[in-house]
Amino acid sequence: MTKHIHGGDVYKYDHCLDFSANCNPLGTPQSVKQAIIDSVEDLSDYPRVGCGPLKEAIADYEHTKKEYLICGNGAADLIFSLSRALNPKKALLPAPTFAEYEQALVSVGCEISRYYLKEENDFCIQKDYPDVLKREKPDIIFLCNPNNPTGITIPQDLLEEILETCAMQGIFMVVDECFLDFVKDPEKHTLKEKLAKYPGLFILKAFTKRYAIPGVRLGYGFCSDGEVLDRMEAVTQPWNVSTMAQQAGMAALKEAEYVEAGRQIIFRESAWMKEKMRQVGLTVYPSEANYIFFYGPEDLFERCVAKGILIRDCSNYLGLKKGYYRVAVKLHEQNEKLIEVLEEVLS
Amino acid sequence: MTKHIHGGDVYKYDHCLDFSANCNPLGTPQSVKQAIIDSVEDLSDYPRVGCGPLKEAIADYEHTKKEYLICGNGAADLIFSLSRALNPKKALLPAPTFAEYEQALVSVGCEISRYYLKEENDFCIQKDYPDVLKREKPDIIFLCNPNNPTGITIPQDLLEEILETCAMQGIFMVVDECFLDFVKDPEKHTLKEKLAKYPGLFILKAFTKRYAIPGVRLGYGFCSDGEVLDRMEAVTQPWNVSTMAQQAGMAALKEAEYVEAGRQIIFRESAWMKEKMRQVGLTVYPSEANYIFFYGPEDLFERCVAKGILIRDCSNYLGLKKGYYRVAVKLHEQNEKLIEVLEEVLS
Repeated sequence: MTKHIHGGDVYKYDHCLDFSANCNPLGTPQSVKQAIIDSVEDLSDYPRVGCGPLKEAIADYEHTKKEYLICGNGAADLIFSLSRALNPKKALLPAPTFAEYEQALVSVGCEISRYYLKEENDFCIQKDYPDVLKREKPDIIFLCNPNNPTGITIPQDLLEEILETCAMQGIFMVVDECFLDFVKDPEKHTLKEKLAKYPGLFILKAFTKRYAIPGVRLGYGFCSDGEVLDRMEAVTQPWNVSTMAQQAGMAALKEAEYVEAGRQIIFRESAWMKEKMRQVGLTVYPSEANYIFFYGPEDLFERCVAKGILIRDCSNYLGLKKGYYRVAVKLHEQNEKLIEVLEEVLS
Repeated sequence: MTKHIHGGDVYKYDHCLDFSANCNPLGTPQSVKQAIIDSVEDLSDYPRVGCGPLKEAIADYEHTKKEYLICGNGAADLIFSLSRALNPKKALLPAPTFAEYEQALVSVGCEISRYYLKEENDFCIQKDYPDVLKREKPDIIFLCNPNNPTGITIPQDLLEEILETCAMQGIFMVVDECFLDFVKDPEKHTLKEKLAKYPGLFILKAFTKRYAIPGVRLGYGFCSDGEVLDRMEAVTQPWNVSTMAQQAGMAALKEAEYVEAGRQIIFRESAWMKEKMRQVGLTVYPSEANYIFFYGPEDLFERCVAKGILIRDCSNYLGLKKGYYRVAVKLHEQNEKLIEVLEEVLS
């Protein structure tokens, strides 16, 4: 069985400014910190099984039905519980993409075939994908939109064609929209409105990135097939979402201005960073998310660490080779530091 | 698939004094609350994968090897990940016992046979158990010591005979010692010293009860078979233990006086409560843990709730019937309230 392989370890590189994790650049909102601080008086009770009030708040925020919702100990928890609940025999995954889809599928003995994203297509899924689906006949697919680590979204007409193909072929379709909050028009990309019509569609989301709380562990998912959600719950302990996480989530959902402010910073900074990165000779791909995917010298990771900057070496993603990297879009002052270091080590 | 069935829901019965969950009566230590409060500044980083420093602290506290340790999102998380990692085909469980063993085993398609604990034996495991093992030939057994909900420990010579039988027969043995911290001489009961010699032994422990932090979600387990631990990690997301939980755990382990003070309260109060409960006509079993198991009128749960007291109705445990109950041992003033209500509703 393969081991979890992930990027920058801030504990190992604790002297570095971390560009390897991609969260809202504004950091954890004060109200979320306060909710966790307030929750310490409630920790001698078990967490609320089923996260009822949190689900109501999420349903309200997402304009969807509470009955479609499931909460987890981070979105990664849901990737594993969904894999266990469906127990698929064959999956089709893009390469490169987020490593935990494979990890979860392999853990239930699922065979995995790959749809390789090509450099010459800017690592974008192509129109042949529905035909590949018909040929490969997987039980399940995972698509990350925008994709991690490339930041590229799937063209909407193609995404809808894939959804239709999956429905026709009886393929369960998982769309990870964890980074969708940071693209320009999330509502043009989300498949939320398709949930009622397509019970074989599962959408993943997380609090982690939107509110910069990866340490808290809180994610959620939507599916209109109640039996799938019931099965996910049956293969998971009843208290998987801590009291702190439930209370943090309730507070976070009220932070509309904070989210929008984070988005505006990302749009502005991402454009500036991409320009600067191209100027120093890096090949920068057209990421639409809160991170930038690029190609550069093979020893760039080490050169940056030596200068106190932690970037994500993406060479351990299946489908990528040495020289591919990802950096988060952070606050201007931090981004300036990154650009300075890149200019320094590449000059 | 069966649904999670658990006791008192403090959110549903929020006007009640809760005797349905069994934690250290002193409540969450201030230092643990403070550790969580301090952790809010670190939540924009992912939690530490593998919980290295926490594992070192636990190994130190438990006088065991760090390499034998695995941490989880509560002990229940480990019950599920162990079941997934071993994927057993047949299990033998006592009845009654903690419901999550069955839940986790059923979720991996494991067939379950039962060793029924008998009222006439005070629900204690008997000398015939090793023979039952040889006859049933399960792949795995779970024993809860002391058992939940009965509070009865397994005689040490019998426990060691079971361990030896399991080793001889190739049966994986899980011993849940989550409530062992609250019996008089934990060191006489624990199988920790047997870990090195028996790689097919897994011991479960939790912070939940010892430090009254069920809302936090933090448990751990020991096993000397590193491959079992690796497989458990491979079937679980890498970030299953939150930053708050890791920091809470580090602080909690320093609370030696608090734990001992909680134990002394329990010894004193448990004896007092048992006597009072017998005086009002309840059949009280000789629980050695921080909760009391008893038999009484079939409508006692409802009568207590009407008076603001939440007790654990144990009739949904397999092997028990209507009329069996469990109450936590709490602080004297709280226990007095319980006894008052019992006297009132039973007079």
